Amino acid sequence: MRKINEECGVFGIFGNENSDVARSTYYGLYALQHRGQESCGIVVNDDGLFNSKRDNGLVNDVFTAEVLEKLGEGNIAVGHVRYGTAKTKGRANALPIVVNHIKGRMAISYNGNIINAYDLRCELEMDGCLFHTTSDAEVISYVITKERLKTGSIEEAVNKAMHSIKGAYALVVMSPSKLIACRDPHGLKPLCLGKTNEGQYVVTSESCALDATGAEFIRDVKPGEIIVIDKNGLRTIEDHVGEAPMKSCVFEYVYFARPDSVIDGVSVHKARKRAGMYLAKEFPVEADVVIGVPDSGLDAAIGYAEESGIPYGIGFLKNKYIGRTFIAPGQSVREDKVRIKLNPIVDTVKDKRVVIIDDSIVRGTTCARIIRLLRNAGAKEIHLRSSAPKFLNPCYYGTDIDSRENLIACKHTTEEICEIVGADTLGFLSVENVKKIAIEAGEDAFCTACFDNIYPTEIPKETKKYRYEDKISVAKMKENEEKK
Amino acid sequence: MRKINEECGVFGIFGNENSDVARSTYYGLYALQHRGQESCGIVVNDDGLFNSKRDNGLVNDVFTAEVLEKLGEGNIAVGHVRYGTAKTKGRANALPIVVNHIKGRMAISYNGNIINAYDLRCELEMDGCLFHTTSDAEVISYVITKERLKTGSIEEAVNKAMHSIKGAYALVVMSPSKLIACRDPHGLKPLCLGKTNEGQYVVTSESCALDATGAEFIRDVKPGEIIVIDKNGLRTIEDHVGEAPMKSCVFEYVYFARPDSVIDGVSVHKARKRAGMYLAKEFPVEADVVIGVPDSGLDAAIGYAEESGIPYGIGFLKNKYIGRTFIAPGQSVREDKVRIKLNPIVDTVKDKRVVIIDDSIVRGTTCARIIRLLRNAGAKEIHLRSSAPKFLNPCYYGTDIDSRENLIACKHTTEEICEIVGADTLGFLSVENVKKIAIEAGEDAFCTACFDNIYPTEIPKETKKYRYEDKISVAKMKENEEKK
Amino acid sequence: MRKINEECGVFGIFGNENSDVARSTYYGLYALQHRGQESCGIVVNDDGLFNSKRDNGLVNDVFTAEVLEKLGEGNIAVGHVRYGTAKTKGRANALPIVVNHIKGRMAISYNGNIINAYDLRCELEMDGCLFHTTSDAEVISYVITKERLKTGSIEEAVNKAMHSIKGAYALVVMSPSKLIACRDPHGLKPLCLGKTNEGQYVVTSESCALDATGAEFIRDVKPGEIIVIDKNGLRTIEDHVGEAPMKSCVFEYVYFARPDSVIDGVSVHKARKRAGMYLAKEFPVEADVVIGVPDSGLDAAIGYAEESGIPYGIGFLKNKYIGRTFIAPGQSVREDKVRIKLNPIVDTVKDKRVVIIDDSIVRGTTCARIIRLLRNAGAKEIHLRSSAPKFLNPCYYGTDIDSRENLIACKHTTEEICEIVGADTLGFLSVENVKKIAIEAGEDAFCTACFDNIYPTEIPKETKKYRYEDKISVAKMKENEEKK
Amino acid sequence: MRKINEECGVFGIFGNENSDVARSTYYGLYALQHRGQESCGIVVNDDGLFNSKRDNGLVNDVFTAEVLEKLGEGNIAVGHVRYGTAKTKGRANALPIVVNHIKGRMAISYNGNIINAYDLRCELEMDGCLFHTTSDAEVISYVITKERLKTGSIEEAVNKAMHSIKGAYALVVMSPSKLIACRDPHGLKPLCLGKTNEGQYVVTSESCALDATGAEFIRDVKPGEIIVIDKNGLRTIEDHVGEAPMKSCVFEYVYFARPDSVIDGVSVHKARKRAGMYLAKEFPVEADVVIGVPDSGLDAAIGYAEESGIPYGIGFLKNKYIGRTFIAPGQSVREDKVRIKLNPIVDTVKDKRVVIIDDSIVRGTTCARIIRLLRNAGAKEIHLRSSAPKFLNPCYYGTDIDSRENLIACKHTTEEICEIVGADTLGFLSVENVKKIAIEAGEDAFCTACFDNIYPTEIPKETKKYRYEDKISVAKMKENEEKK
Repeated sequence: MRKINEECGVFGIFGNENSDVARSTYYGLYALQHRGQESCGIVVNDDGLFNSKRDNGLVNDVFTAEVLEKLGEGNIAVGHVRYGTAKTKGRANALPIVVNHIKGRMAISYNGNIINAYDLRCELEMDGCLFHTTSDAEVISYVITKERLKTGSIEEAVNKAMHSIKGAYALVVMSPSKLIACRDPHGLKPLCLGKTNEGQYVVTSESCALDATGAEFIRDVKPGEIIVIDKNGLRTIEDHVGEAPMKSCVFEYVYFARPDSVIDGVSVHKARKRAGMYLAKEFPVEADVVIGVPDSGLDAAIGYAEESGIPYGIGFLKNKYIGRTFIAPGQSVREDKVRIKLNPIVDTVKDKRVVIIDDSIVRGTTCARIIRLLRNAGAKEIHLRSSAPKFLNPCYYGTDIDSRENLIACKHTTEEICEIVGADTLGFLSVENVKKIAIEAGEDAFCTACFDNIYPTEIPKETKKYRYEDKISVAKMKENEEKK
Repeated sequence: MRKINEECGVFGIFGNENSDVARSTYYGLYALQHRGQESCGIVVNDDGLFNSKRDNGLVNDVFTAEVLEKLGEGNIAVGHVRYGTAKTKGRANALPIVVNHIKGRMAISYNGNIINAYDLRCELEMDGCLFHTTSDAEVISYVITKERLKTGSIEEAVNKAMHSIKGAYALVVMSPSKLIACRDPHGLKPLCLGKTNEGQYVVTSESCALDATGAEFIRDVKPGEIIVIDKNGLRTIEDHVGEAPMKSCVFEYVYFARPDSVIDGVSVHKARKRAGMYLAKEFPVEADVVIGVPDSGLDAAIGYAEESGIPYGIGFLKNKYIGRTFIAPGQSVREDKVRIKLNPIVDTVKDKRVVIIDDSIVRGTTCARIIRLLRNAGAKEIHLRSSAPKFLNPCYYGTDIDSRENLIACKHTTEEICEIVGADTLGFLSVENVKKIAIEAGEDAFCTACFDNIYPTEIPKETKKYRYEDKISVAKMKENEEKK
Repeated sequence: MRKINEECGVFGIFGNENSDVARSTYYGLYALQHRGQESCGIVVNDDGLFNSKRDNGLVNDVFTAEVLEKLGEGNIAVGHVRYGTAKTKGRANALPIVVNHIKGRMAISYNGNIINAYDLRCELEMDGCLFHTTSDAEVISYVITKERLKTGSIEEAVNKAMHSIKGAYALVVMSPSKLIACRDPHGLKPLCLGKTNEGQYVVTSESCALDATGAEFIRDVKPGEIIVIDKNGLRTIEDHVGEAPMKSCVFEYVYFARPDSVIDGVSVHKARKRAGMYLAKEFPVEADVVIGVPDSGLDAAIGYAEESGIPYGIGFLKNKYIGRTFIAPGQSVREDKVRIKLNPIVDTVKDKRVVIIDDSIVRGTTCARIIRLLRNAGAKEIHLRSSAPKFLNPCYYGTDIDSRENLIACKHTTEEICEIVGADTLGFLSVENVKKIAIEAGEDAFCTACFDNIYPTEIPKETKKYRYEDKISVAKMKENEEKK
Repeated sequence: MRKINEECGVFGIFGNENSDVARSTYYGLYALQHRGQESCGIVVNDDGLFNSKRDNGLVNDVFTAEVLEKLGEGNIAVGHVRYGTAKTKGRANALPIVVNHIKGRMAISYNGNIINAYDLRCELEMDGCLFHTTSDAEVISYVITKERLKTGSIEEAVNKAMHSIKGAYALVVMSPSKLIACRDPHGLKPLCLGKTNEGQYVVTSESCALDATGAEFIRDVKPGEIIVIDKNGLRTIEDHVGEAPMKSCVFEYVYFARPDSVIDGVSVHKARKRAGMYLAKEFPVEADVVIGVPDSGLDAAIGYAEESGIPYGIGFLKNKYIGRTFIAPGQSVREDKVRIKLNPIVDTVKDKRVVIIDDSIVRGTTCARIIRLLRNAGAKEIHLRSSAPKFLNPCYYGTDIDSRENLIACKHTTEEICEIVGADTLGFLSVENVKKIAIEAGEDAFCTACFDNIYPTEIPKETKKYRYEDKISVAKMKENEEKK
């Protein structure tokens, strides 16, 4: 359903004794559902006893009233929604992960990608460690547990573990008595903090999940910061703060996050509107109406309309009832002819010069189809604008961008793309301007590697790619590797 | 989920032999899903053999790939989505109804309400007829069947039956070899006709279902017209055309229909935009932004913005993942505090004077909650505009309007309502102007009884109301009635 | 799973106000499950309001705690388990049927087959009647309803209807205030009466369902008798009693009924034991052990052992966990080699001369497989005895016997069958003796038509067979018929 | 459903490449279902790639055609059925367990109980090991993995691990290329070996699972033996053979195993028949009929009948349709009055002196109820015989015997028990004779600790009991323990 996929949304709540933390987490996961539709999970901590439910499916499918009832009351809970990459599919990989170690139980909810997970796992396996999943979260669990044996507290173990774990992560760790949250030193993944009227603390990927649970936004977690919440209140460990320059993912603003969220101090809706305004400045055109591709192109369309003075219109009706089991048109029916998911509103576009804003152009096939729909609806001219720059490079931080051979911008010039998708004119937002859409966070505060190939961290060697295959153990792979 | 409910959407297709009419119907029902979410059904006619599937649930729940496969191929099919009133709830009442009579099978898909169903049913029961359901469609089946015994063709039986059946209806009847569609003489319910490239005829409630099946719109079925489709092509019977003045339901434009549909020659989106424009003229105000309540207030908001010159903005994020099993906040959590289904976009409304357009105000509770959300998000002024006039009267044609004691406009003046919902100013579109929003169909072409108490037909006596109770037979009720 | 199929089991209870009649019916249906595994249903009558649940599946699948809860309390209930013939498959045909007529609601649970259903249905359709199902129960409903219009009470209508309805039936009819049970004048189908300590009357197909509900057996319903139960107690109408000679189905004793049931005064277990004893007299043999094919051959095996003096043994273990979704061995695995459902107990049969008793031999394939299993387990000699005579004729009273071309006894002599199935010797119980297994009911009290071709009623003409096809209406069929 | 519970049944098959090992395992698990109804699982090994399905439920519920299809083909597979003790409930604990370690994947299916699991787990946790489950199988996995790091082959690692692992176990281990099976040195749990015509080796808990997969029985695995199967064929490691005297569980013969199985050379049916014969010698009585409590009392009843010369009869009808969701009679209905699961066959027992054989008497409540049923059915005298001696002691090897306060024999004399259950006379098989029921295996070859308190191994200290509680980690428990 979505063109580009994020791996996860995380949620943690530290409540009062016997409170309905499961239900709050459930609401939070609903708000984060756009960040992962493959599986979801909640772990409730009732004074050291962990009850959990994790399964493939939407929040709506997995958490029925009965399931929620069974999770019971507790004082702490963590939750997770996951988009499953090839590497992490399957119910066994559903998060939050729950493990038992020498000091008791631990649950981990996690968003990101660990660059050196492969090497860490090899070392651990060499030491006799067993792995039940292919998830980075299990590697993280081991690293924290190994540190825990040498140190006096779980938060100190997390602090030490952050020296070993490289990459992008927003982490929520639940021990029998504490809730700990941390963000990688670059702040590649978002994480924020809130508090309810009843004094419950909430940490989560996006502020919209705070709204969903009735918590007030306090502040974003700083890059490298560790937040510790227990019955004595909230403390912060800043040993890793400032260790690296902030480089948060700009694509959160362009596409991933919900427009009603505020990330690192910037409204996502506002950032998108600005992207539209910059587009209007970079690629002005005479036209009768500006429309957006629902849903994530709408905010930028408003911005383009406002900046250009061209009226904003509603160009499409999106069918909101189409669910998971929808049977798409196949051989017998050409998809172009049936307009089930998206239907143009003829009155808006007929005989008009139309500017249409899409959030991004990945393979170009969706764009082409949308432009055909507009042509058939009688649009006179079609001016396509992408509120993301051209996708040219892979992401190593958890975003599932297509391989280069599938990225249309890797193989074609703007002019060629324009012709391929069938537009009259085409413009991509410049990398220069995309960095300014959330200017309040600082002009240089973003990772834009997918557009400009500048990665804030070391990146994994290509040869390790096959670790994600399921056939053999990592150690066997290493052997194979060495033989080559 | 919806404030006011329509009873049904109908669909029929006459295809070629062994074609995938089930799948086309399935796509059509997806497009009509907004007209009824209680149950749905498809009946496929394979040269006289009827295969059917009807059940409670959304199209998405009921029709899996396996179910569709089982329905098989055929040359004709009818489909139905239903909103269940108290009277028609329960799986047994799911439509299309299938009956066997002396001349073979018959399936009926139906949208509307038969004013004299009570009396017709009594007569039939007196004659020894058995009823399996409480649906009007079963009464209609009997009336047609009784006529069929006396006449040479199913279409002639339908034609005769239209003399007995009083009220609002769009009817699709499938016999072993024919597809027949008709609309009541006032045209109270919409019905239109289309044709695919392959020459398959489609009749359905809204043109968006034609788009969904790849059919081109041909024309609306005329009030009172009977369309007959068989292997010899399409014929029309116009005996009832002109028998009564056209009085189509204006609320289809205001609320029921999808904005991408065109009904009786008028774009629903355009009609809604016009409603917004009239509102801007009737109730102008100085403001910074115009927003709509998603989804059905958005089109009118665009109209208000355009007419007034005030910029259009996106005021709310609507969570699209919340499904049937969503567990709403209960005692423990006040709903006002958790913003799960609808969350304001703070950047759009903070410190602004906001005009907000809602499609209608029924009880006022939803409005009040939305206005509180805007206030909490920092809106400076809130000017509420309703693109429907005040609801004051019941509908006898199948729309499930609340009882008068629940209609806020029956008990309060505009000023009082404004205060109750917490707005700064409030305006309802006038009845005069609502009649003009689809002016191309004629100024007097609409039933606006819910607003102005002028009903195009006789209306049923109040005393017959209890027939919808389930306890005893209609005949018993009649007895009771007479005793009184 | 069963070789020969019965169509139904019926159950009715007249309780006290607001009692848990649904649960009692549920227990009753569990006891009757062997009489029909295709679908089941319960209708609860709460002072005129009928709540029902009918669906395909076993009692265990259809009636969850939640479903039973929803059925609620009431004062009367009827239930049904059904074996679906080709004619009556499909959820719409699940019984008890519920219809609304001029005097209120009526539910009918029914076991049997109406010989003249075809003609009755034609007449009714000519009169404009609609049919929703292909079940005889709907025809019966109409006949009773038509009589009801001309008479003062439901029981009188049933009494009159019995003049028109020809064939085999045990009928339980529930009106808003009465429970009526009747049995065809030949008593072809069993029906008995019981009463609980609390004074609730129960009518049902077999006495084991009385035991399951804690009711004491009172007596069998007489052939032709009508039992009427209402708040004034129990009455009986005997107008049809004695109208025809008693001819109850002997196969109930041989196979259908549960061994713990008592039918028409005779213990089914005892009748089966007697069958085994007669077999020992008719076909004695020197042997080391007598075993039965589980489960319905066990009782006769005890009888054979007792009469012959040869020790009884347990020859097979039957896997009791194999359910509906069991995936049988297919191409890759020859069924003969895997012993999943039935496994011989080697210790019992190895190096022994074995007498094995089966309840009947229909196609012979199951017998052949069982004998191969015994041979492989080391049995030295195998003497097969069938406690039913040879099946030679169809049943027109609701038992689904295979067509003649599939009946092994229609095509082969005893000697040939013995060779085909691989036994050393083979004996079928004689028709003469099968009539004596329930001698207490009278020697001539049984229908043995399937063995001896003597039918107690008229039988339907062969040409009407195709009415069970689904393609066209009965009337159309009649037309076709006349054309021939 | 069962009175005393066994923890598991194991199954492993080493097939040819791309063969349908999943389906064979599926059939095997069906045959082992009586050994565990809580959960089941299959892991298929397709040349190093492991596909698994494990879930709560019967084989019939978990393995649909679709699930089996998804498991695909492979060359090796292991399966498991589990009875869940309090300690191991929950889907996460479903076996076979699958883990990844430095040398690749490993799956373990296991039946038994590890006496020193508590201590092993503590040591491992001290070393930084994480546990996902509370199952002994995970402890075993770690012990084998730790050994694997120090040794050259998986079988050698298993061999070494057997020095550390104390208790009762039948183990099937699957590596990417091998199938390894072993049995504890006492042979407390059964394990046998078979081979199909196609040359596939099968190892499993009971020989009935060989029959179900078409494999011929080769021999029992010896106590302490390790069987290694790979593409080079079958090898055996006998380092632990003879290390301890054989002490196989006698209760397998009395109750657990299927009567068609042969364990350690003895037919289970025969052993049970012998138990009945010994009972007849120890407790003779004059009577008219001998009956057994279905199903596991039937074999012994045959033995009693044969030895005593009293005729064998069928005393009860057991309802085979009652499934998991059966709603038992509650407050409103006294269970004694409704005979749903078990109904006496009156004809067998009325006015008779009845000997009834039960496999064991645990709490006595079931016995008492059965005797009341017989009394109500008219039995004149009731002589109860238990084919197991009195239960007096707990089992530490995986059998879930009730606590002493619930064992009726711990609190009452035979005379008292006889009175409590309502029998006329009562006899328990003597410990002396129970040791002789499988005399071919040797008179001293059995563990009879539950009867005579003589345990073949060390037994765990009582204080460690609370480790099975779920609240805290083992280490935390240890701390608590030390504080005391």
